[in-house]
Amino acid sequence: MTNKRMIAYILGILLWLEAAVMLLPCIIGLIYMKADTLSPVGSFIISISILLACGGILLTFKPKDKTIYSRDGFVIVSLGWIAFSLFGALPFTFSGAIPNYLDAVFEAVSGFTTTGASILTDVECLPHSILFWRSFTHWIGGMGVLVFLMAILPLAGGGGDLYLMKAESPGPDVGKLVPRSKNTARILYSLYFGLTLIEFMLLLFGDMDWFAAITHTFGTAGTGGFGIKNDSIASYSSYSQIVITVFMILFGVNFNVFFLLICKKVKEALKSEELRVYLGIIFVSIVLIAINISSIYPDWSFFQIVNKSSFQVASYITTTGFTTTAANDFPNFSRMILLILMCVGACAGSTGGGFKIARIILIFKNAKREIKRLIHPRSVNAITFDGKNVDTDVRHGTNVFFVIYAIITALSFLIVSIDDVDLLSAVSGVVSALNNIGPGFGRLGIECHFAFFSPLSKIIFIFDMLFGRLEIYPMLILFAPLIVGKNGRTFRRRIK
Amino acid sequence: MTNKRMIAYILGILLWLEAAVMLLPCIIGLIYMKADTLSPVGSFIISISILLACGGILLTFKPKDKTIYSRDGFVIVSLGWIAFSLFGALPFTFSGAIPNYLDAVFEAVSGFTTTGASILTDVECLPHSILFWRSFTHWIGGMGVLVFLMAILPLAGGGGDLYLMKAESPGPDVGKLVPRSKNTARILYSLYFGLTLIEFMLLLFGDMDWFAAITHTFGTAGTGGFGIKNDSIASYSSYSQIVITVFMILFGVNFNVFFLLICKKVKEALKSEELRVYLGIIFVSIVLIAINISSIYPDWSFFQIVNKSSFQVASYITTTGFTTTAANDFPNFSRMILLILMCVGACAGSTGGGFKIARIILIFKNAKREIKRLIHPRSVNAITFDGKNVDTDVRHGTNVFFVIYAIITALSFLIVSIDDVDLLSAVSGVVSALNNIGPGFGRLGIECHFAFFSPLSKIIFIFDMLFGRLEIYPMLILFAPLIVGKNGRTFRRRIK
Repeated sequence: MTNKRMIAYILGILLWLEAAVMLLPCIIGLIYMKADTLSPVGSFIISISILLACGGILLTFKPKDKTIYSRDGFVIVSLGWIAFSLFGALPFTFSGAIPNYLDAVFEAVSGFTTTGASILTDVECLPHSILFWRSFTHWIGGMGVLVFLMAILPLAGGGGDLYLMKAESPGPDVGKLVPRSKNTARILYSLYFGLTLIEFMLLLFGDMDWFAAITHTFGTAGTGGFGIKNDSIASYSSYSQIVITVFMILFGVNFNVFFLLICKKVKEALKSEELRVYLGIIFVSIVLIAINISSIYPDWSFFQIVNKSSFQVASYITTTGFTTTAANDFPNFSRMILLILMCVGACAGSTGGGFKIARIILIFKNAKREIKRLIHPRSVNAITFDGKNVDTDVRHGTNVFFVIYAIITALSFLIVSIDDVDLLSAVSGVVSALNNIGPGFGRLGIECHFAFFSPLSKIIFIFDMLFGRLEIYPMLILFAPLIVGKNGRTFRRRIK
Repeated sequence: MTNKRMIAYILGILLWLEAAVMLLPCIIGLIYMKADTLSPVGSFIISISILLACGGILLTFKPKDKTIYSRDGFVIVSLGWIAFSLFGALPFTFSGAIPNYLDAVFEAVSGFTTTGASILTDVECLPHSILFWRSFTHWIGGMGVLVFLMAILPLAGGGGDLYLMKAESPGPDVGKLVPRSKNTARILYSLYFGLTLIEFMLLLFGDMDWFAAITHTFGTAGTGGFGIKNDSIASYSSYSQIVITVFMILFGVNFNVFFLLICKKVKEALKSEELRVYLGIIFVSIVLIAINISSIYPDWSFFQIVNKSSFQVASYITTTGFTTTAANDFPNFSRMILLILMCVGACAGSTGGGFKIARIILIFKNAKREIKRLIHPRSVNAITFDGKNVDTDVRHGTNVFFVIYAIITALSFLIVSIDDVDLLSAVSGVVSALNNIGPGFGRLGIECHFAFFSPLSKIIFIFDMLFGRLEIYPMLILFAPLIVGKNGRTFRRRIK
C-alpha cells in the first residue's frame, strides 16, 4: 500500500513552496520594470496564482496517517521534481521568452537539475526577471527542493523524511550528519547559503554588477551553468573567472567535509578518500590539458593557459558547464579528458552531477578485488571506504547502478540518433544531459544550445536530465510497474 | 607457486603447432608460384624454421609435474596468444607484404582475435599465400588455439586442461559438453570443421572460385572479416552474400546448441534463452534498419534492402566485419544500432566477439532484480538462466566484468585520442578493436583501414583486441602483479 493522500499532500506543499520562491523573480521584475523592454511581472503573477490554486487542491488531501511507505519516498521525489519543472516552465512561456512550452519545460528541467543546457540561442535579449529565474532554479535544484522543505518544516514521522532525503540527495548513500534528519537538512542549507553568500560578495569585488554576481553565484552554487551572457564567462575579468573556478570546485565537494570543518574536525575532513581522489583528478587533468593546449595556443601566457585549463576542468568535473573558451576547439586529447570528467562527476553529497567520485572509487576497488580473487580464489578481502567496511549490498548496488546507467545511455543514444544530427552531437548531448553538465561537442559544441534537436529528442533529454539528477532510482521506481509488472504496487512495508 | 616448466613446455608445443599450420599457406604459395608476382614461400619456410627452433628450446623444459595451477591457465592462454601473434606476423614482414613489423603484428593479432581490422590499404595486390594466411588466422583464432591443442593431444591432468579451455573460450562460463574436456574440445572442433566444410561447398556453387570460397569461409567461420577484395563482399553475387549472411549468424550461435541438435535434443536446443534473444535482436535490427535505409535508397528493391540490412546486422552482431555496402553512409539511427550491436556481440561459446548475449541477459535480469528489490526490499528472487539458478558469483562477476570492460574502454579512448584523428574514429576504433569487429565509423568508416593511427594507438588497439578475444581476465591475470602487487605471485592452489 502506498499512502496516496500523503503523496498528494506533500506535492501540494511543494507547489506552494514554488509559488513562494517565484516571488523573488517577480520582485526583480518590478525593479527592472523600466529597464526591460518587455516586463514579465504579470506572467509570474499568473504562474504563482496557478501554483497556489493547484497546490490548494492537493492540500485538501490532508492525511490522518503521516507515514511514508518505502516506495513513496521515491515517488514523491520524482513526481515533485516533475511538477516543479512543469510549473516552473510557465513563466518562460507566459512571458513569451520561450513561446514553445516543451522548450520551456526543457529549460526549466535543465535549470532545476542544474544541467545548464539551454534551447535559447540568445540569452542577452531576455528580461532580468527571466534570467534571474533561470539561474535561481539552479540554486533551488542544487541542494534539492525536498531537503529545503525538510529544513523549514517537519514532514513525516518514522524516518520517512530521511527516506525522502536519501531519495533526493546525490551519491551512493547519504550520511545523516546529526541524529535528526530535519537538523541535517538545516545544516546542509546553512552551509549552502553561507558558501553562496561568500562567493556573491567576492564576485562583487570584481567586474560584475550585483545582478551578474548573484546569477553567476546561483549558477556556480548549483553547479548549473546558466549565464546571462551568450559567451558565458569569457567576457569577465580573470579575477571573476578564478573566483568561479575555486567555488565550482568547492561546491563539488561532499558537504559532509564542510560540516566536519566547521566542527573543527580538520583531520577527519582531510582524511576523506573521496576528497583526495577528487582533488587528485582535478590536479592531474589541469596539468594534462594545460600541456596539451599550450602547443595549440603558443601566444598564450602560462597564466592564461593554466587559468583556461583549470576553469574548464572545474566546470566539467563539477558538471557546471560554464565556459571561458570554446572547449570544442581543444585538441582531441583534452576534449576526451573533459568528456570523461563529465561522466566521473563531482563528489557524492555535493551539488554536482555525474557518476560521482565515491561510486568510481567503489567500482575500482571492486574490480581490483575481483582480480585479487582470480589469483587468490579463496581469499576474502572486504572493501573499505574511509576506513569503514562497505557492505555487499552497497557494493553490488553500485555495480548495478552503473549497469542501469549504461542501459539508459544506450537507449537514449538510439532514440536521439533518429533525428539526423551528427553522431558526436547526439552522443555528447545524451552524456551531457544524463550527467547534468550542459555543453556538448560536435554541432552542440559549436552552437552551444539544444534548439536544433527534434521534440522527441528533447523529451529524451528531459528524462535523461531528471534521471541524472535524481540518480535513476526515483524515476525508475515511478516507472517500475512498467518494468517489473503491477505486483510492484501491491506491497506494503513501513519504514522503521 | 606457478608451474613455470609446464607453462614453457605448453608454449613450446604451441609454437610447433603454429609451424605445422603454417605449412598450408606455404603449399598455397607453391601452387601459385607462377601466378603471383612475388612469391613468399621462402618467408614462410624461414618463419617455420624459427618457430621450430624457438619451440624446440622451450620443449627442453619437459616437466615431471604436469599440474596446471590456478593462475597458470590464464597465463598460458595470454602468453600463448601473444606468442602466436608475434610469430604469426613474421611471414607478413619477411614477404615484404607488411614491411613494418608493428603493423604486421597488428594484422596478425587482428587475424587471430578474429577482429578483421587491417592496416593494409590495398589487399588485392597481395600474393595468394599471404591472403590465405591472413584468413586462416581467423579460422584458427575463432575456436581457439588451445582448444585445438587439447583436441589433438592430452595436456595436463587434474582438470588443468578444462581450466585452459575456460580461460580461452568466450562467454561467462563454458559448459563441458561431455565429462572429459578433451572430448569436448574434439566435438567442438568437429562441429566447427563440419560447418566450415558446408559453407565452403555452398559458396563453390556461387560465383566464387575455390580460393575465394575458402578464404571467405575462414573469415565467416572465425567471425573475422578479412577478405581478398578491397570492397569486401560487395562485388560478389547476392547468392554468395546470402550464404555468408546465414553462416555468419550460425557461427554466432553457442556451439552447445549445435551439440544438442546433433544429439537430437531439438527441444532443449530451441529452449536456449540466449539463442532466442540472439535471433530476436537480429530480426528486430534487420527490420528497423531496413525501414530506416529504405527512405534513403528509394531506388533499391525490397529484396536489395532486406539483403543489405540483414548482411550488415549479421556482420556486426557476430562481429565479423564483412561489408557489402559502406555502412558509414547509413543514416545515424542505423549506424547507432550497428554500433550497439558491435558491443552486444554474439552468443557465448561461439566464435563471435563482443560482450556476449548471455552476459547482456544476465545484466538485464540483474538490473530488473535490483529494481524489484527496491520495491520489495525484503523479497529474494534468484536469477535463473535456461531454467538453472545463476549463483551470486557469476552474477556479481558479470557486473564486475562489465565495469572492467568500461574502464579499459575509457583508458583506450584517452590514449588513442592523443593522435589527432576525429573523435568518432578514435571512439569507434577502440570499440571495434575491443569487441573484435573490424570496421569503424568516421574516417575509419571511409578509409576502412587503421593505417593512419600512430604506433602508440596501434599498440593500444593490439592490446584491446587481445583483451577482447580473451575476455579480459587472462590478460589481466598476466598484468595482475602490476595492479594488485607482487603478492599475487606467492599463492599456491592446485586445481581439483
